[in-house]
Amino acid sequence: MAESRAATVPLVDEENATGKVAEVFADIKRTKQIDFIPHFWRVLATNPAQLEMVWISLKRLMHPEADGHRSLLDPATREIIAIAVSATNGCSYCINSHTTAALKLGLSREALGEVLAIAGLFNMTNALADGYQVEPDVRPPLE
Amino acid sequence: MAESRAATVPLVDEENATGKVAEVFADIKRTKQIDFIPHFWRVLATNPAQLEMVWISLKRLMHPEADGHRSLLDPATREIIAIAVSATNGCSYCINSHTTAALKLGLSREALGEVLAIAGLFNMTNALADGYQVEPDVRPPLE
Amino acid sequence: MAESRAATVPLVDEENATGKVAEVFADIKRTKQIDFIPHFWRVLATNPAQLEMVWISLKRLMHPEADGHRSLLDPATREIIAIAVSATNGCSYCINSHTTAALKLGLSREALGEVLAIAGLFNMTNALADGYQVEPDVRPPLE
Amino acid sequence: MAESRAATVPLVDEENATGKVAEVFADIKRTKQIDFIPHFWRVLATNPAQLEMVWISLKRLMHPEADGHRSLLDPATREIIAIAVSATNGCSYCINSHTTAALKLGLSREALGEVLAIAGLFNMTNALADGYQVEPDVRPPLE
Amino acid sequence: MAESRAATVPLVDEENATGKVAEVFADIKRTKQIDFIPHFWRVLATNPAQLEMVWISLKRLMHPEADGHRSLLDPATREIIAIAVSATNGCSYCINSHTTAALKLGLSREALGEVLAIAGLFNMTNALADGYQVEPDVRPPLE
Amino acid sequence: MAESRAATVPLVDEENATGKVAEVFADIKRTKQIDFIPHFWRVLATNPAQLEMVWISLKRLMHPEADGHRSLLDPATREIIAIAVSATNGCSYCINSHTTAALKLGLSREALGEVLAIAGLFNMTNALADGYQVEPDVRPPLE
Repeated sequence: MAESRAATVPLVDEENATGKVAEVFADIKRTKQIDFIPHFWRVLATNPAQLEMVWISLKRLMHPEADGHRSLLDPATREIIAIAVSATNGCSYCINSHTTAALKLGLSREALGEVLAIAGLFNMTNALADGYQVEPDVRPPLE
Repeated sequence: MAESRAATVPLVDEENATGKVAEVFADIKRTKQIDFIPHFWRVLATNPAQLEMVWISLKRLMHPEADGHRSLLDPATREIIAIAVSATNGCSYCINSHTTAALKLGLSREALGEVLAIAGLFNMTNALADGYQVEPDVRPPLE
Repeated sequence: MAESRAATVPLVDEENATGKVAEVFADIKRTKQIDFIPHFWRVLATNPAQLEMVWISLKRLMHPEADGHRSLLDPATREIIAIAVSATNGCSYCINSHTTAALKLGLSREALGEVLAIAGLFNMTNALADGYQVEPDVRPPLE
Repeated sequence: MAESRAATVPLVDEENATGKVAEVFADIKRTKQIDFIPHFWRVLATNPAQLEMVWISLKRLMHPEADGHRSLLDPATREIIAIAVSATNGCSYCINSHTTAALKLGLSREALGEVLAIAGLFNMTNALADGYQVEPDVRPPLE
Repeated sequence: MAESRAATVPLVDEENATGKVAEVFADIKRTKQIDFIPHFWRVLATNPAQLEMVWISLKRLMHPEADGHRSLLDPATREIIAIAVSATNGCSYCINSHTTAALKLGLSREALGEVLAIAGLFNMTNALADGYQVEPDVRPPLE
Repeated sequence: MAESRAATVPLVDEENATGKVAEVFADIKRTKQIDFIPHFWRVLATNPAQLEMVWISLKRLMHPEADGHRSLLDPATREIIAIAVSATNGCSYCINSHTTAALKLGLSREALGEVLAIAGLFNMTNALADGYQVEPDVRPPLE
């Protein structure tokens, strides 16, 4: 698999990280309370501006409490959205990563099964609604 | 738009529903506590076996309490999954329908904005992880 | 909607078609046995080389008999694949067009319902298999 | 790859299956005429209710004859839809599984090539129709 | 369509924008050199933090020159990526918006046709490569 | 992985290629200036007509200069579209192949990072625009 990795960008090692990359790496470990830098961030680090931009967005939405922001969704629900989107897109790295995160947050395997079942269900009904060219229901406006 | 509807199947009117279709229609209204049959179900009703099968799955997963089943996710979280999947697939009927349902369940517009922001974020990171051919992190097994 | 059309390319009118475009237009009507040029081809005609290239591929795969080629799939099965792919992608123009073509070829509305139900089912199981990170079964090789 | 499996759910062994799971497992082997339980079902089995629900839908749509139902599509056509959807979604487990099933049903490798070529073609035309914002053709309604 | 809009969030009017929203709105008009606020930003404005976050990312990647950053891609190429992604996802608002932007930047309709043709082509080959389960080529590593 | 390959079609060896397949193989090596036949083409070669059709389209769009055609996009931009589409669809073979091709054409790793960042961005905004059901902006028609 070495050749496929070579085709894109090398992983940035934590030991070699300096400046902005080192700062973001430290923030990732502190915020996520993990003791390694996941591959995803090590690849993005080859482009420090991109690393920072993606991390700022992800931190703001997935770890708002770390900066004193509040979220209207609890942490497990936020990971559930990540899993539902990643299963729909079939992104194996992301499914692996967010499934792990959700279990770590206390989501049980049974609840994870429910998340995937519901995600599967709506992939089915999406195809049905599009395939049947169903038009939106007319409803009284909310409020 | 008449010609596009005509191309597929006609909507089954509630007044014309008999037998199994009438039963499912009644169960939909009772379970969802609505006083009309959404277009989606009226289209599926042209094939009664399909209507029943999709309804059984959806009822079991989205309205388990109606049959005395328990869910490990609360009703709003279940609608959030529906919205995340439908936004990812771009299914306009489904987005419209499940956004309405989520608001009706008490999800605020601000929280809905958060759901969509997180769904958007993971559509971005999914493309990045796939585009960079990132391989799963090696981690100690859970448990 | 005028502004959205204007944003891309105008439709080429059949009366204004000359040269290669006129030839392809005539071949489309003859091959598909229709008396109008669908919007899809009228848009592609703004780029004659692209029109020809897409038409050659589509004619070869969907109307092989027209040029004396044989297909191992019957015409309705070929339209069924078009519908399954288009429902999965949520392409409304394509769903509309290929649903009409399938019904014209004699596929009943009930059979169309079955096609969509099966397409829906596999959109569900695709999300489940990806979401659960299921690995391929080990099986003895075929033959 | 052990760590990725660990992240989600373990496979249920056939020997350890009891109650509803054992019943569904037996029905899968009998209905599909295979002598092992594919990974997909072994993963779903960690949630017996979900296993049963997905199996009921899949059996009803893909193996209707087993319960005395009739289908308007022949078995190979049903597998062709599964392949077209799975190739569109890029679900590798599903492509692997349904390609095997189709070949076992007698679909030749040449015909399989045609299925994939047509699925590829419509993924192309879907992007073109959406990209050009083509609007549905106006046609006289069917019937 | 009023009811579908009502189901999600109302558009924020430019006249009613205050604080951070007014600032971002002004920056959007200045940076994009347009004299109206596109619907996309008016919807996001119902959640000011989200508006700002999406705008910062989009400005950084699509209008880097505005803040003295440099890009290795020219503006038209950046819009071409937007079009290719949006056509692949079938997002009609985005296709409409970025097609307009590309034409305004001087991309000819003929070149736009080429962009869409190439995007279509790779949607086809993606389905073929996935459908045939093709494994990566073994190549000597770059560099 | 032998069993998964066996499930679909075997790779055609260059040494065994005859007739049309040998001709296309030679043209691929000459046109792409490579000294091996990528797996993708070796799989398609099991169906010579399909091999030829896909190659003709790909050569026309990606290597137009080889046949004296002109393109309005430079070769690197054409590969950028391939990468953006393949990252969106998550097609690992295609991402690997086109990333390699783009780097070979001189696209720097930093520029590649920008391509993926922009592709990621629009996967995010596509989901947001669809999720918020945003309607196209009304604009004066171009020209």
